[in-house]
Amino acid sequence: MTIHPRLSADRELAIRLFDQLAEQSRDEPGVTRDAYGAGEQRAHDLISEEAAELGFIRAVDAAGNLLLTLPGTEPGLPAWVVGSHLDSVPHGGNFDGAAGVIAGLAAVAGLKRAGRLPRRPVIVVATRAEESNWFPASYIGSRTLLGLLPPELLDLPRSDTGRPLRDHMRELGLSPEGVAKGERLLAPERVHGFVETHIEQGPALEAEKIPLGLVTGISGSFRYRKARCLGSYGHSGAVPRRHRQDAVFAVSDLIQSLDRLWSELDGAGRAATITFGEVFTDASQHGFSKIPGELNFCLDVRSADRDLLDDIHARLMAFVAEIETRRGVRFALGERTGSQPAVMSAELLRQLGSIADRLGIPHLSMPSGAGHDAAVFANASIPSIMLFVRNQNGSHNPHEAMRIEDFHAVATVLTHLILE
Amino acid sequence: MTIHPRLSADRELAIRLFDQLAEQSRDEPGVTRDAYGAGEQRAHDLISEEAAELGFIRAVDAAGNLLLTLPGTEPGLPAWVVGSHLDSVPHGGNFDGAAGVIAGLAAVAGLKRAGRLPRRPVIVVATRAEESNWFPASYIGSRTLLGLLPPELLDLPRSDTGRPLRDHMRELGLSPEGVAKGERLLAPERVHGFVETHIEQGPALEAEKIPLGLVTGISGSFRYRKARCLGSYGHSGAVPRRHRQDAVFAVSDLIQSLDRLWSELDGAGRAATITFGEVFTDASQHGFSKIPGELNFCLDVRSADRDLLDDIHARLMAFVAEIETRRGVRFALGERTGSQPAVMSAELLRQLGSIADRLGIPHLSMPSGAGHDAAVFANASIPSIMLFVRNQNGSHNPHEAMRIEDFHAVATVLTHLILE
Repeated sequence: MTIHPRLSADRELAIRLFDQLAEQSRDEPGVTRDAYGAGEQRAHDLISEEAAELGFIRAVDAAGNLLLTLPGTEPGLPAWVVGSHLDSVPHGGNFDGAAGVIAGLAAVAGLKRAGRLPRRPVIVVATRAEESNWFPASYIGSRTLLGLLPPELLDLPRSDTGRPLRDHMRELGLSPEGVAKGERLLAPERVHGFVETHIEQGPALEAEKIPLGLVTGISGSFRYRKARCLGSYGHSGAVPRRHRQDAVFAVSDLIQSLDRLWSELDGAGRAATITFGEVFTDASQHGFSKIPGELNFCLDVRSADRDLLDDIHARLMAFVAEIETRRGVRFALGERTGSQPAVMSAELLRQLGSIADRLGIPHLSMPSGAGHDAAVFANASIPSIMLFVRNQNGSHNPHEAMRIEDFHAVATVLTHLILE
Repeated sequence: MTIHPRLSADRELAIRLFDQLAEQSRDEPGVTRDAYGAGEQRAHDLISEEAAELGFIRAVDAAGNLLLTLPGTEPGLPAWVVGSHLDSVPHGGNFDGAAGVIAGLAAVAGLKRAGRLPRRPVIVVATRAEESNWFPASYIGSRTLLGLLPPELLDLPRSDTGRPLRDHMRELGLSPEGVAKGERLLAPERVHGFVETHIEQGPALEAEKIPLGLVTGISGSFRYRKARCLGSYGHSGAVPRRHRQDAVFAVSDLIQSLDRLWSELDGAGRAATITFGEVFTDASQHGFSKIPGELNFCLDVRSADRDLLDDIHARLMAFVAEIETRRGVRFALGERTGSQPAVMSAELLRQLGSIADRLGIPHLSMPSGAGHDAAVFANASIPSIMLFVRNQNGSHNPHEAMRIEDFHAVATVLTHLILE
């Protein structure tokens, strides 16, 4: 294939859409696009209207995922599917998710501006509810897109309203019944490949001064979101060491045990992350002069290596049992949730690396520690890949940042891919 | 001295007073006697009225401490001072503090019932504001009783109302001006000895099946009530181990370092306690999929050995510095508060042990890990001692319990002491 160095994504369209999106979802500090709520819906409406002007054929599935189709010159061929989600965490940044949808539109707009049409159909998808803070499950939108959502998840309550997913769907005129039946507008066998553009969310590209990451795999996880350690309250001065059942010391033991394990794994090149994101004593009972009798915490363990997740989980159970005995406490870990790791397409990896090389865009192969919709596509046997855009200040926070030059470079790689 | 085996404290008076006190301060679960508030005042009123009926001469000092004097047969002799505080923690138990005041009344009532009068005057004191959850300072009542409260502490806000101590005093018709000038009704040189009866608050007497503890020393402390560890927030999956600045892992390091130190000290017979009573990530920012960028905690370290407190503090500073470097976090420990350890009178210890032996009451010598008003008396060079009553379920909680037989045995030891 030859490369057309002047063919690029539509930079001005991208700038305008990012600005409009930020403006309409502003919720200082940052932006809020609540899944199956007004914020996400406004984003879908904006993208849908823009797509209509660009000549896309629009469709919305039972779950409210948006499918924007540009017919190719050879209509019988399986399609390129590109996109990401449009929801955000509360008071999050403007780029997480949206960048993948806007990259799709900007790529197609770039082709049109150059008077080019792809051979294959291109379907830009905007999924729903990818951020699992809204509903306690991963990848709701992409699983519905492929007709794969277990119907019982329609009963999950949204964290802020307490009302179930199915009610939120109905309020937007969608069809939870259709979702329950597995109705879908996208058949995996009609997909040639799925490409999700996304900000990196981590510091690696910035640290390496490289604008593009080619993702080799997406971490799965196991999670305990509502774990507790139960000991005994007591006067901080009056209970000798040997009589204590201190929940804070016990959880600290657990953190240290997992930290040592993590350090060993890291040294051996086995990649995982371990995070205790929320930790809190009971504010209605704790006190500076009280031995803490309870500590609440959540644990998030991620790895792209399924066996490693299992290994870490087994070690966790052993640590818990040992600490319970030694400290006289009890752990109530609660429900285990999580997601499966996903392997990205080696062929797409090679193809995209080649395009980037020819365009002179430096790139780095890397795993994704965060979960993404692409994991669902990959685990449905669709060749899938992610393009990471270098970003600053991480994500899921109001300070999320991304240089438009970096975005444009990555969207241009996508533009060239869908033209092949 | 001969012992009169049938001379004992007035058990029925004690039962009635404990019941009345519980009834009028009930605040389910437990009782609340707020320092310099309605709850504590009702307790002072009850005790004052009862003392009047028993023939005590009543006085209230500038700070609202109650001094109930029974003249002795030799009016010129320095007095026995016995008592404790009448405030409680919110939703606390009925015995912490009150037992010491009621023991004084029950001892004197026992003497009167037996037709005996002591040689020395007996002053039963009911102090104020001993529980430092109300105002962030230790021993406010006993320090004012001896004219020793630093005037700037009158500006301390009460934790629930936010209004300063001086305002709360004024509302009860007391004199913060007098307190500021160090006015007092009790001159240390007129005190022969101070005896504070108190529930143990810990499990040692219960575990050893012994009703009476003779306290050898009272722990001092150093405290950081509003400490924070500051790291960086980040996506739990997207930031590799080496780039993390995880506040929870950092504080866990600190807890582990202090735990190891404590274990060594304990093994070497150097008694101290170390407690992180409150630990919490920032609920407005934390999340299960976020690396925690901040952890709030408080630290309470106690020991009856002043040098040991200094040693532990020095080690704490070294741990903090090392962890800051290694984890890339910053500790903001905030203000250091605390109190000095106090040594109890060896002579009173011997005298009380002898009385208990003659009465056939098993007893145990032990340090007090918790702070008590007696520390202020001891540090003002007044020979002081504490009598611990075996209790169940600790203290500072609604389940606090004490057997009236144990209380009666200990109050009877006090009865015999003041008759000597």
